[in-house]
Amino acid sequence: MEAEAVAKRPREDGAEGNGGGAVSSMVEDGKAGDYISSVIPGWFSEMSPMWPGEAHSLKSSTYGKVLVLDGVIQVTERDECAYQEMITHLPLCSIPKPKKVLVIGGGDGGVLREVSRYSSVEVIDICEIDAMVVDVSKQFFPKLAVGFEDPRVNLHIGDGVAFLKNVPEGTYDAIIVDSSDPIGPAQELFEKPFFESVARALRPGGVVCTQAESIWLHMHIIEDIVSVCRQIFKGSVNYAWTTVPTYPSGVIGFMLCSTEGPVVDFQHPVNKIDECDSFNKEKGPLKFYNPEIHSAAFCLPSFAKKIIDSETR
Amino acid sequence: MEAEAVAKRPREDGAEGNGGGAVSSMVEDGKAGDYISSVIPGWFSEMSPMWPGEAHSLKSSTYGKVLVLDGVIQVTERDECAYQEMITHLPLCSIPKPKKVLVIGGGDGGVLREVSRYSSVEVIDICEIDAMVVDVSKQFFPKLAVGFEDPRVNLHIGDGVAFLKNVPEGTYDAIIVDSSDPIGPAQELFEKPFFESVARALRPGGVVCTQAESIWLHMHIIEDIVSVCRQIFKGSVNYAWTTVPTYPSGVIGFMLCSTEGPVVDFQHPVNKIDECDSFNKEKGPLKFYNPEIHSAAFCLPSFAKKIIDSETR
Repeated sequence: MEAEAVAKRPREDGAEGNGGGAVSSMVEDGKAGDYISSVIPGWFSEMSPMWPGEAHSLKSSTYGKVLVLDGVIQVTERDECAYQEMITHLPLCSIPKPKKVLVIGGGDGGVLREVSRYSSVEVIDICEIDAMVVDVSKQFFPKLAVGFEDPRVNLHIGDGVAFLKNVPEGTYDAIIVDSSDPIGPAQELFEKPFFESVARALRPGGVVCTQAESIWLHMHIIEDIVSVCRQIFKGSVNYAWTTVPTYPSGVIGFMLCSTEGPVVDFQHPVNKIDECDSFNKEKGPLKFYNPEIHSAAFCLPSFAKKIIDSETR
Repeated sequence: MEAEAVAKRPREDGAEGNGGGAVSSMVEDGKAGDYISSVIPGWFSEMSPMWPGEAHSLKSSTYGKVLVLDGVIQVTERDECAYQEMITHLPLCSIPKPKKVLVIGGGDGGVLREVSRYSSVEVIDICEIDAMVVDVSKQFFPKLAVGFEDPRVNLHIGDGVAFLKNVPEGTYDAIIVDSSDPIGPAQELFEKPFFESVARALRPGGVVCTQAESIWLHMHIIEDIVSVCRQIFKGSVNYAWTTVPTYPSGVIGFMLCSTEGPVVDFQHPVNKIDECDSFNKEKGPLKFYNPEIHSAAFCLPSFAKKIIDSETR
């Protein structure tokens, strides 16, 4: 049984990461700001104002090592495959032969690992704001950090918003935004000026995929994101989702949008992941993604479909 | 804010429901056998040997009232729609004009509520082992218990296994098994003799849908169930799944099988729920189920597909 790997980044404003007193009741006997639960020794408990009235507790022996930022679970070894594979292959299988890909966030390397399965890809730029995430991943999560070993990867440590402003117009075929939640350092990545920069940096018919919260918990946030994307992306605007047991409510969603240009039909993937491709072969088979689950990810429960459709038409 | 509704049924063997000491650390200050967490006042915490190394805690103000049996969350007002609608409409929309339906378990009434949306249905038999579940539901969960008000419903309190043995061969068009987990009183409902009784009670080309655990947590149990069903049901054998945030790992699966006879293609529903049907209209629109999510439910992640396909071929 391995110990938890918990990376706690000091916030620049000096505040504790959880933006409230919610977590304090879980760490009565622990050091302040220590998110390892003292309630159940050896367990980690997650609480956040993003999902009030709910807590999820994990024991390392079940979920493997857990990466935690500002008190919120980002990655566990057991279920990371669902998130990394879906956020990467939903956009990259929707366009033929992606060449230039940008990852914003994603400092654990998991998305890079998935992007590097494509032999068509020539350049993989990544802009991660927090060098410590990269270091912790390299130390504790070799199966994620392996993504950094691809020679096509260029790592930039810095603010994704600023990075995008300096990118020449029409540079990328695909941009993947692997961010944390909109409360905290990632807030700007859910706002209109950021999506405008993304659209500018994409080629005509280029695609973006961004982490877009839970249909069970955050329909109001999703509604706003969909509305903003509809104004900015003149190709198509879609919402997809998948299961990730260790995320609140057990699901996570993605916004998938394309710029004006060659039509992108996200629900029907054009690009199959070739298991015989040498770039793919050495990484082993996919654990989660396949073409059927790609299409299924766009089928929404009625309560979510009603709201999202009203924003996308 | 309403109080939690927690039904705790005394086990016949006198043991505590959670089959181990796991829950005890969560109820240090509470009464023994009281599953309301004393750790976070006003919260309920769920732990079980069925999902070791994981605990889920809920506050009533977020998820509404919660029905708990033997320490395990069965129903919350917030997300019950996903489970009740999927376990009912996946089988009933897969056959034309279902007439006779049997529900095993389901004493909260939620499945009955969904079955009663079909005007073609003439008889709805239900066999629930625990009268207390029915009583608690009528008292605390009127939106579920409304299912009992349909005059087509015949309630039997008793053992579903024994009930099925006395059913004349070929009686039902559909049987829905809304059970708890295989550790505890529902154990027999996951075993071969039970499935044989189910097959016997169905007409040729009749369908069964049973609760079948989580692909993230219980692939070994699922593999066994699929293997048993493959031996017994000579029509088709399928696994589907959906999201239910308050169930462990956030997903729940269903076995959908048909007996020899008219072919049932579960992935392509033949029976649409008619929103204009008077039986349906008075219940209000569906919150979760639609024909797209029906088909999508049969698309499995690669890790699960590999194991389930190997058992079903």
